[in-house]
Amino acid sequence: MMSNNHKLKVFSGRANRALAERIANNLGDTLGRIVLDNFPDGEISVRIDEDVRGRDVFVVQSTCPPVNENLMELLIMLDAFKRASAARLTAVLPYYGYARQDRKDVGRVPITAKLVANLVTRAGADRTLALDLHAAQIQGFFDIPVDHLHAAPVINDYIRTMNIPPQDFVVLCPDEGSIKRALIHQKKLGGAIAIVDKRRSSATETQQANLIGSSLEGKVAVIFDDMISTAGSVVGAANVARRAGAREIYACATHGVLCGPAVERLRDAPLKQLILTDSIPLPPNKHLPNIKVLSVAPLLADAIKRIHFNESVSRLFE
Amino acid sequence: MMSNNHKLKVFSGRANRALAERIANNLGDTLGRIVLDNFPDGEISVRIDEDVRGRDVFVVQSTCPPVNENLMELLIMLDAFKRASAARLTAVLPYYGYARQDRKDVGRVPITAKLVANLVTRAGADRTLALDLHAAQIQGFFDIPVDHLHAAPVINDYIRTMNIPPQDFVVLCPDEGSIKRALIHQKKLGGAIAIVDKRRSSATETQQANLIGSSLEGKVAVIFDDMISTAGSVVGAANVARRAGAREIYACATHGVLCGPAVERLRDAPLKQLILTDSIPLPPNKHLPNIKVLSVAPLLADAIKRIHFNESVSRLFE
Amino acid sequence: MMSNNHKLKVFSGRANRALAERIANNLGDTLGRIVLDNFPDGEISVRIDEDVRGRDVFVVQSTCPPVNENLMELLIMLDAFKRASAARLTAVLPYYGYARQDRKDVGRVPITAKLVANLVTRAGADRTLALDLHAAQIQGFFDIPVDHLHAAPVINDYIRTMNIPPQDFVVLCPDEGSIKRALIHQKKLGGAIAIVDKRRSSATETQQANLIGSSLEGKVAVIFDDMISTAGSVVGAANVARRAGAREIYACATHGVLCGPAVERLRDAPLKQLILTDSIPLPPNKHLPNIKVLSVAPLLADAIKRIHFNESVSRLFE
Amino acid sequence: MMSNNHKLKVFSGRANRALAERIANNLGDTLGRIVLDNFPDGEISVRIDEDVRGRDVFVVQSTCPPVNENLMELLIMLDAFKRASAARLTAVLPYYGYARQDRKDVGRVPITAKLVANLVTRAGADRTLALDLHAAQIQGFFDIPVDHLHAAPVINDYIRTMNIPPQDFVVLCPDEGSIKRALIHQKKLGGAIAIVDKRRSSATETQQANLIGSSLEGKVAVIFDDMISTAGSVVGAANVARRAGAREIYACATHGVLCGPAVERLRDAPLKQLILTDSIPLPPNKHLPNIKVLSVAPLLADAIKRIHFNESVSRLFE
Amino acid sequence: MMSNNHKLKVFSGRANRALAERIANNLGDTLGRIVLDNFPDGEISVRIDEDVRGRDVFVVQSTCPPVNENLMELLIMLDAFKRASAARLTAVLPYYGYARQDRKDVGRVPITAKLVANLVTRAGADRTLALDLHAAQIQGFFDIPVDHLHAAPVINDYIRTMNIPPQDFVVLCPDEGSIKRALIHQKKLGGAIAIVDKRRSSATETQQANLIGSSLEGKVAVIFDDMISTAGSVVGAANVARRAGAREIYACATHGVLCGPAVERLRDAPLKQLILTDSIPLPPNKHLPNIKVLSVAPLLADAIKRIHFNESVSRLFE
Amino acid sequence: MMSNNHKLKVFSGRANRALAERIANNLGDTLGRIVLDNFPDGEISVRIDEDVRGRDVFVVQSTCPPVNENLMELLIMLDAFKRASAARLTAVLPYYGYARQDRKDVGRVPITAKLVANLVTRAGADRTLALDLHAAQIQGFFDIPVDHLHAAPVINDYIRTMNIPPQDFVVLCPDEGSIKRALIHQKKLGGAIAIVDKRRSSATETQQANLIGSSLEGKVAVIFDDMISTAGSVVGAANVARRAGAREIYACATHGVLCGPAVERLRDAPLKQLILTDSIPLPPNKHLPNIKVLSVAPLLADAIKRIHFNESVSRLFE
Repeated sequence: MMSNNHKLKVFSGRANRALAERIANNLGDTLGRIVLDNFPDGEISVRIDEDVRGRDVFVVQSTCPPVNENLMELLIMLDAFKRASAARLTAVLPYYGYARQDRKDVGRVPITAKLVANLVTRAGADRTLALDLHAAQIQGFFDIPVDHLHAAPVINDYIRTMNIPPQDFVVLCPDEGSIKRALIHQKKLGGAIAIVDKRRSSATETQQANLIGSSLEGKVAVIFDDMISTAGSVVGAANVARRAGAREIYACATHGVLCGPAVERLRDAPLKQLILTDSIPLPPNKHLPNIKVLSVAPLLADAIKRIHFNESVSRLFE
Repeated sequence: MMSNNHKLKVFSGRANRALAERIANNLGDTLGRIVLDNFPDGEISVRIDEDVRGRDVFVVQSTCPPVNENLMELLIMLDAFKRASAARLTAVLPYYGYARQDRKDVGRVPITAKLVANLVTRAGADRTLALDLHAAQIQGFFDIPVDHLHAAPVINDYIRTMNIPPQDFVVLCPDEGSIKRALIHQKKLGGAIAIVDKRRSSATETQQANLIGSSLEGKVAVIFDDMISTAGSVVGAANVARRAGAREIYACATHGVLCGPAVERLRDAPLKQLILTDSIPLPPNKHLPNIKVLSVAPLLADAIKRIHFNESVSRLFE
Repeated sequence: MMSNNHKLKVFSGRANRALAERIANNLGDTLGRIVLDNFPDGEISVRIDEDVRGRDVFVVQSTCPPVNENLMELLIMLDAFKRASAARLTAVLPYYGYARQDRKDVGRVPITAKLVANLVTRAGADRTLALDLHAAQIQGFFDIPVDHLHAAPVINDYIRTMNIPPQDFVVLCPDEGSIKRALIHQKKLGGAIAIVDKRRSSATETQQANLIGSSLEGKVAVIFDDMISTAGSVVGAANVARRAGAREIYACATHGVLCGPAVERLRDAPLKQLILTDSIPLPPNKHLPNIKVLSVAPLLADAIKRIHFNESVSRLFE
Repeated sequence: MMSNNHKLKVFSGRANRALAERIANNLGDTLGRIVLDNFPDGEISVRIDEDVRGRDVFVVQSTCPPVNENLMELLIMLDAFKRASAARLTAVLPYYGYARQDRKDVGRVPITAKLVANLVTRAGADRTLALDLHAAQIQGFFDIPVDHLHAAPVINDYIRTMNIPPQDFVVLCPDEGSIKRALIHQKKLGGAIAIVDKRRSSATETQQANLIGSSLEGKVAVIFDDMISTAGSVVGAANVARRAGAREIYACATHGVLCGPAVERLRDAPLKQLILTDSIPLPPNKHLPNIKVLSVAPLLADAIKRIHFNESVSRLFE
Repeated sequence: MMSNNHKLKVFSGRANRALAERIANNLGDTLGRIVLDNFPDGEISVRIDEDVRGRDVFVVQSTCPPVNENLMELLIMLDAFKRASAARLTAVLPYYGYARQDRKDVGRVPITAKLVANLVTRAGADRTLALDLHAAQIQGFFDIPVDHLHAAPVINDYIRTMNIPPQDFVVLCPDEGSIKRALIHQKKLGGAIAIVDKRRSSATETQQANLIGSSLEGKVAVIFDDMISTAGSVVGAANVARRAGAREIYACATHGVLCGPAVERLRDAPLKQLILTDSIPLPPNKHLPNIKVLSVAPLLADAIKRIHFNESVSRLFE
Repeated sequence: MMSNNHKLKVFSGRANRALAERIANNLGDTLGRIVLDNFPDGEISVRIDEDVRGRDVFVVQSTCPPVNENLMELLIMLDAFKRASAARLTAVLPYYGYARQDRKDVGRVPITAKLVANLVTRAGADRTLALDLHAAQIQGFFDIPVDHLHAAPVINDYIRTMNIPPQDFVVLCPDEGSIKRALIHQKKLGGAIAIVDKRRSSATETQQANLIGSSLEGKVAVIFDDMISTAGSVVGAANVARRAGAREIYACATHGVLCGPAVERLRDAPLKQLILTDSIPLPPNKHLPNIKVLSVAPLLADAIKRIHFNESVSRLFE
């Protein structure tokens, strides 16, 4: 609905300002001026510090921890931009918090991922730009258009720079739920497939039993996941791979939440490198020496430019 | 819309569980069972632990600090209750956070108090029960029915037990904005009126100049406000009263937010007693010896009972 | 959401066509052609008499008395413009009727100011342009953007032309509710402050008792209010000022409703001049010789131009 | 959605209080207490004067002239009842103003009948009870349930008491648009059919030419219409019938708007009797001696009772 | 809301692709690429095969039989275009199925024409372009703008090419419901009027009795209707005309549904020619030799162009 | 929101009337009377043939093939029930068509499963009762409450009657996507797990290579899926099992769509028995001798009863 006379402007919440700045830089611009603060009682105050009337506004906010603070800040910013007569409001969510609460597996629980979609829409977003949603169905939680990007090309490009010999390359799935994602990477990168059979892992302690598929003996195992939260799953898979004789073990994930015991677990894990993106900021105390952070800023900037100029976003993936 | 075959049940978020329990006790019941927790990444998990299908559910949650946590918890609870087929959902908000962001005094700011109303409605509330909203117009921010209670009768009853001699009693307004509220109390309690003239206070340092109305010399000054946040205003008024020769100084407020320098200021203030309600929980480290906490639980319980049984809530004030 | 290829066009209802014409003139244009009439049974008929498809339409209608006629005419016009495919519809409300019904002070009353906001939105307005709303919170009654202008600069400019000696200038507040507004004017114009203490006025008849603040003896008193309805309050204040020895008394208000006994009261009041704006048309029989009408047309025209060209409206006040 | 423990209560606006009282009487009740007034500036004030929480409320308001006053009063009442927590709100519209603005026959006009439906719904009505809507499609303008009653049985019962000899009875259609309605009456009452051919009437002046169908010579002609507004059509038809030799001429209509030249025209018309209902109040100055007013109160009361007790309203017509 | 930088693009469902192609040709363009198919279980699959982000999209779909297939295909296409970020979505409905279900004549039936309007809006249409709706009130079933075209000029132009002598030309109404439509044609084309009196037709078998108005003896009778469904009404009228001595009989209708016994009836009917438009595709087995199909493609293309360029659509009829 | 004075009534569309009758029988009732038909042009006509005002209505309709007919019939029925003032409307969807269109895997496609949720809600459903949704996230596509049942207990009960020796029992997953479902059955039924590795199956033709997990040699393989559509996947798995030496092969699925080549494939497949439920009707020509149909009517009836009487539906699974 935008035409070129609605100037594009990117604003950032406080969740991941570094990423937002990189996005703006990629667009050859600086971030829009906005004053974000907390009153003494913790209430968030927002004041947009430049004219946004008729602008095509993109608000970058990862709803990573502290998720409730970051989500409320996003909602309040959306309200301010809407009332300030922005021409169009796109909520850019490099990380979509509460994404795992996307169904009712038991009775009397919320579907918080849907609630978040409703709140973002109610607060005034006209569209959403997301990255590697935990479940693709979350797009359908919105009635406004959602552009859903994938960090896979960014991660794959990096993996290719490692020059792992094709015959040594094994894609390792930490559990059944990640098979689909692993296959997408394997289709691009080649390599064999192996799956950690979690059910047996807990029951037996033998080495061979808990791996399905390709042998890891002397191979380079690469684990792919969408997010690393407490790191239990990825570290478990790494340990299995180590016991199975893998020569080198890598893990990749778009979203590095790294909460709870994650850092401790990762510090002790047999991982040569953990590859993450900057969808969530990594504070210094979590930045282990073997963590490599790739930036999704060029990807998001490109999508923002295409959205603004009405060019195909799907073509980003061709 | 309720009939007697929809059983009433009160549930509580984690913001002010003590108040919610008092409300349930006043209703001769216990709180409904609900499991509220945080995942390691800080996301809130909600599981209602008893059947609520067809129940008339009241969810008690003060959106006091940490306001964003408490507000999101309320919204997620509402989503869970709605999906669990509660017959009717009333959000009980003894303290309504963000109430002071109720207008745009400058350009490009949010009206967060309206946003909160929209979010609470979108998440599934059928009605709201509130206490001493900072601005009465916030009722109009909702399209669902709002029952708006006042703690004034509770506070006035307590003041009466002090037996202040009528000729000594002076209602002291800390600023122009509080005159209306002060007059409501004075109408019930009698006494003279004095107003702190803040504009002059800063300019001059003389004692008489910054007081308008009744003399305080040898009198008992009682300050009324709706909330005490950083306590700057109330402590300033107390100091003026002290300099004006008041014999005893009391301050009353419905909502004791007591954030930032509040406790420190109050500790040094010439207040004989600070009277608050339990709309916001007062942690031990804030509970100064001269603070008296009155409970609004009987008031809220009575309103809940009347709402449930379709009796007049207005009659609570007659 | 507008671009320059959506031509701006101003239309007027029948409430205040003179003001709308002045606005159009200020924009270097004429009013859009629209045929407004009543059928013999009083139903309003609307026919837009020029093409509006893709236009940026501003509909000027003060909802002054007869308020229900004017409000319904506005709603019907909005429906016609929406169905005629206007690109954007802005309801320009120089006077917002029912603004004082903005809260429930007693039980079982409407919040008509909110209802009006809902009706205007439902009928098709995309945004609203308002002038000196009775309560700033009314902005929050809308979920569509509201630009809220103030006539204070227009009135202050006029006051300055009077060249009242600074030491003689006293801003007189007719009641507690108008203190805030008075302070805004006083901040720009200088002068002392005095407040009519209404509660005592009724009780006692003595001259000094019912004035708080600066003495008026030999001074020039200027009363500021947002609207003059039955004129009871402003005439009461003028009489107090007269008894207090004021040399000259002026009254200013944005909205001159002048209903009921207003004209009679004003005719007998000790006012040297009553300064109003043309937000509400003043029929000849109400146009007393000492009434001065300032036009808000330049202000509204400027705001319309800025809204159309996506320029900051806040800057109007700098 | 009502159960018996939600007490039924009928309230009335000021448009047609006499009818509302008759409805309440037919229900063995009195009207609910509500204070309706106008402020000096003409704004409507509403205060419900008895508890309505959890009641099944029916608000009777004909939106007859002054239509805008009556419609706004209805909307404000609905807002008040909704905020006062009525269990269910039914707008009872014995006459639906603006019903003829139900389509866009030319470009750039409103569809006010649809706008009214939207406004009534937005203001809070849960359902509508209407009588002889000008076009049946207006039911579809609502997404809330509409019960649509017909006064035909009431009118037919009265016609039967006249004992017109069947062979003398001719149903006369004043124009093509009324043929369908006429056939409905004729199906119940018997008689021949004649149609006034308006197109020729204006061109020629001969007597026979402008009538299609049965001869009226010496017959009793009965004209049926849904509403009589300026009475041009019905008086024209009566004159045609007189010239065609009709012995007696009657006219019947549900809604007697009688605006503009209606009374004057009717006074001179060759009508033995004009039969109307009390859907619109008939002031004494319009009550010509030959007007007979039938009450639809029993019909509306019966429908209200059936709606309240969840009984079939369709059965009213069997 | 469109500006010229949003390129216009026409897409077609499978209901009437030939018409859509003609429309695109008239616009000097080709149809947009979209892949429409059915999965083996009959579910419709939609994939838009070119970029539509920021385009002004018109989706042509007649909801003719199979109506449910065609309607669902339209709704699914709308969902796909909305999620693909089309700038504006216009549903072009040359034939509006379910239009006759526009009221509740008996209790407990749907108003499907309104339901369809709600579904089309909910699925994402921003506006609708329709042709000869069965009832003009259907425009009011939509809250989005509807442009309502009439095929009458197309049909009249064709009739004029027949050069029927004015004195021989009789417009024949097949029933009372079609009188209004017939008069519109007669106003443009001249000629006399005759009406088939259906009520009597069934009762008596005499030739003269069942015709009202002009004699048909030796005349050219032209029947006008909005749609021909089972052809009962039009063939009945043709037979009446034949018995009444008409020399030639024509029938015209915008929408040729031709379902059930229609083709059989028409084959045996005394019609010299049946004139239809291509609003509904006519399969070869229904294309009788005496059927003439006029194209509404130029009319629809012109309207689409005007909508896109914000020019008056009303002017199409001047 | 229901109380006991709102009588429960079950109605059925034409998609699966036999199941609806079984549900009604299980409730000790007969189906509600409703007349469903098609006009000659294929439009669906609906007339509810008994009073439903104030009833708690459950409309049973599987949106199985012909899916668009069945879905539109459901929507039209919902419209009719809503307008007939049903107290509450529950759409009972034993099979939810379009469930697999639940995400955008490529650009510019619809999310039809979400569209269906929006349409069902817009047409008037207050709640939904579904069975084995293809993706659990579809619950989140609704903002109205969804009760989601599982046929697993019904199927498991039947499997248990087969008395397969535990050591012979192997749960066979036809692909990776069905592993989760298989594990749910295996948890209740015991047995080993084997997975068909589809990727390899296509590449190689060797027998062992395409099975992961437990050996099938001499075992009883039971395949579990949620639906059988063209039967390609299940028959492929059966063939793999046969080649792997399985002694007996069973397949189970809740929804037997059996479209396209399904019956042909199944006729030739090495399946001892195919176990389906009656969520979709199985016409005689598809009812192969080795198909066993279990009824979900008791399960659905129990859920309906619990919903009506406000009892826990979750307890159905304990």
